[in-house]
Amino acid sequence: MARTEQVEIVLGNLGYAVGMLEDCPEFTSLIPEVRVNLVYALPGATTPNEVAAVEGRITAVGGFPRASGMPSLGASDHMARLIIEVRNYDPTVNAGINFKYDKVVVDVVKEYCSEHRILFGWIDRTKEPAEVAKRDGASMPWKIKQLVVSSGGVPRLFYEGEGWGKEPLFVALGKDAVEVATIAIEIARRYRQRIPSHLT
Amino acid sequence: MARTEQVEIVLGNLGYAVGMLEDCPEFTSLIPEVRVNLVYALPGATTPNEVAAVEGRITAVGGFPRASGMPSLGASDHMARLIIEVRNYDPTVNAGINFKYDKVVVDVVKEYCSEHRILFGWIDRTKEPAEVAKRDGASMPWKIKQLVVSSGGVPRLFYEGEGWGKEPLFVALGKDAVEVATIAIEIARRYRQRIPSHLT
Amino acid sequence: MARTEQVEIVLGNLGYAVGMLEDCPEFTSLIPEVRVNLVYALPGATTPNEVAAVEGRITAVGGFPRASGMPSLGASDHMARLIIEVRNYDPTVNAGINFKYDKVVVDVVKEYCSEHRILFGWIDRTKEPAEVAKRDGASMPWKIKQLVVSSGGVPRLFYEGEGWGKEPLFVALGKDAVEVATIAIEIARRYRQRIPSHLT
Amino acid sequence: MARTEQVEIVLGNLGYAVGMLEDCPEFTSLIPEVRVNLVYALPGATTPNEVAAVEGRITAVGGFPRASGMPSLGASDHMARLIIEVRNYDPTVNAGINFKYDKVVVDVVKEYCSEHRILFGWIDRTKEPAEVAKRDGASMPWKIKQLVVSSGGVPRLFYEGEGWGKEPLFVALGKDAVEVATIAIEIARRYRQRIPSHLT
Repeated sequence: MARTEQVEIVLGNLGYAVGMLEDCPEFTSLIPEVRVNLVYALPGATTPNEVAAVEGRITAVGGFPRASGMPSLGASDHMARLIIEVRNYDPTVNAGINFKYDKVVVDVVKEYCSEHRILFGWIDRTKEPAEVAKRDGASMPWKIKQLVVSSGGVPRLFYEGEGWGKEPLFVALGKDAVEVATIAIEIARRYRQRIPSHLT
Repeated sequence: MARTEQVEIVLGNLGYAVGMLEDCPEFTSLIPEVRVNLVYALPGATTPNEVAAVEGRITAVGGFPRASGMPSLGASDHMARLIIEVRNYDPTVNAGINFKYDKVVVDVVKEYCSEHRILFGWIDRTKEPAEVAKRDGASMPWKIKQLVVSSGGVPRLFYEGEGWGKEPLFVALGKDAVEVATIAIEIARRYRQRIPSHLT
Repeated sequence: MARTEQVEIVLGNLGYAVGMLEDCPEFTSLIPEVRVNLVYALPGATTPNEVAAVEGRITAVGGFPRASGMPSLGASDHMARLIIEVRNYDPTVNAGINFKYDKVVVDVVKEYCSEHRILFGWIDRTKEPAEVAKRDGASMPWKIKQLVVSSGGVPRLFYEGEGWGKEPLFVALGKDAVEVATIAIEIARRYRQRIPSHLT
Repeated sequence: MARTEQVEIVLGNLGYAVGMLEDCPEFTSLIPEVRVNLVYALPGATTPNEVAAVEGRITAVGGFPRASGMPSLGASDHMARLIIEVRNYDPTVNAGINFKYDKVVVDVVKEYCSEHRILFGWIDRTKEPAEVAKRDGASMPWKIKQLVVSSGGVPRLFYEGEGWGKEPLFVALGKDAVEVATIAIEIARRYRQRIPSHLT
């Protein structure tokens, strides 16, 4: 398949997934302080410029999730590098989405993983060696290795525990943006039923 | 090719084209009162639900074109039906964009057509029979037939003259959304050089 | 009161009114092709730069009205000049909003005017002399004069009939943006009850 | 002055300040992961519902800052409570803005403070007692007290150092939203001259 066609498929799948999220008011409860990023990597991507994401990420406006800009290549750095790194362990992963971490979300995700027999995992940032944290670009390989080793494989749902100056976050991985958005929406719906409405 | 993949290609190509327009401040001068719609029809589309367009169209904010929402199927009615109708005469047309009509735009488009040996045309709405205008859904087939007959083929660039209660508008047609956005951007750049800046 | 404070009151009242419209899904049905403009003139305004409006106007996205940009001075031309002209006849008018015209809207507005004993009017563009239409800036004084003379005063609700190349539009006038938004929302709610949902 | 008029002044001043930020591409470099919030409290505000802020905050799209929604009351929690708490020490503070923290920003802000003879400060979150951090709503009074005591007054520019799970952030305080936006823009312009363009 030509590269142009691959780009179109990736941008189109991502745009469709954004529309799904924007139509889901329950997902608003899962938007973290740093906003939601939804990314989808081109086949063989080695840099963030070959990974599509939402410009300005997805935030909450008027009770609904809203994309700040269009899907485009190079619009994410952190999540893009995460997908690229994960693929070294599991080449069937192409897309990812991040969402809010709290104790109730942990419960909901664990139940979801157990029902669907999905591997669950977490990155323990307190174990990150100081010399890794300091070196530019060294953190991501360390984190993904720690995740895969401690989980016994690539978990499709995991969280990155809070770090110094870092909000803790959940991540869902999958084959394309629509798949990870579908998972995130299902988790959002279960989460909304669990929390009292005055807390949202 | 599976329908899902076709949808992704269409949405992705459209999203990419929207990004091109949003990055082009000159295109702001070509945005008409009714805003810009950019549409791309799926293969074999017979209804607007099989045609992708920009939700809320494209308007001007802060000197730049800005899409109001995401590309999605069913987001356009008029332009979608126009593409579907045009395909009865030229099945290689899949996408279209509308933009502002004025005398200077006419000059610029005519030069562009002459340089690129593109057929130029126009729809003369004053010739529309009253009984056609009155009947719901009858206008579009009449207009496209009038356009094709008077132009001697399907023109890739044409305008629809002003009608009673209708702003006159230009339309560019092409094989995909990126192609028609590219044409519209080129025309916008030439147009901006032609008009005094105090008029924009 | 200092000019700065006047600007803040005008922008704040306008921003509040925009929020009211964005929270009203029924108003989506009243958004015309040319979008909605909501304007509020500073005391003594003589040019559009002294009239606040919504940048990029208000359009429909995902079933809700959405402002394309922020309220700011100079963001409207036509509606701004309309308010300035109207004030020559009724200095208590400071704000205006335009919305869709169709036969059902006419019925709803007439009932509303009759209930609230508000003067109703319309501008008959077919009576506009050719030499007026041609001269830049001559149309507005002619139109408002025609409106006031034919209505026997300044009507707070009126429409401008369709013209050659012009979509017909309703306008509501009032003392501030919140007042005209309140009227437009009330009309939108009545209109939605009147039309079958498959037509929206 | 009536409460309605106070609300209008606050929303209008905030909307104007948002426009200033949206027109300043340099400010994009100062947008932190958690986005920018710009808040302005009504006189005597005791809850976030009496503090105006930007719905969805301000993020970066296409190289420019962009507000996700309209200014409205109750749209901020953290920054709103911060302003309310600060006023216990300095009742002339009504507005605040947060922006990115890094070592270069610290240098730029310190120079700016020294030039303008403004008190500079910082909140050291490592000193926060565990029992304060745990109790809902106890953190803010502790933090502001710590800030005021350690700075010898209410600093108009300060940062909150990184905490466990918290991005470090700068805050500027002032009498209204336009004043704090003006300060933030000046700091953004100096910051942009200091950093190599390939890092932005």
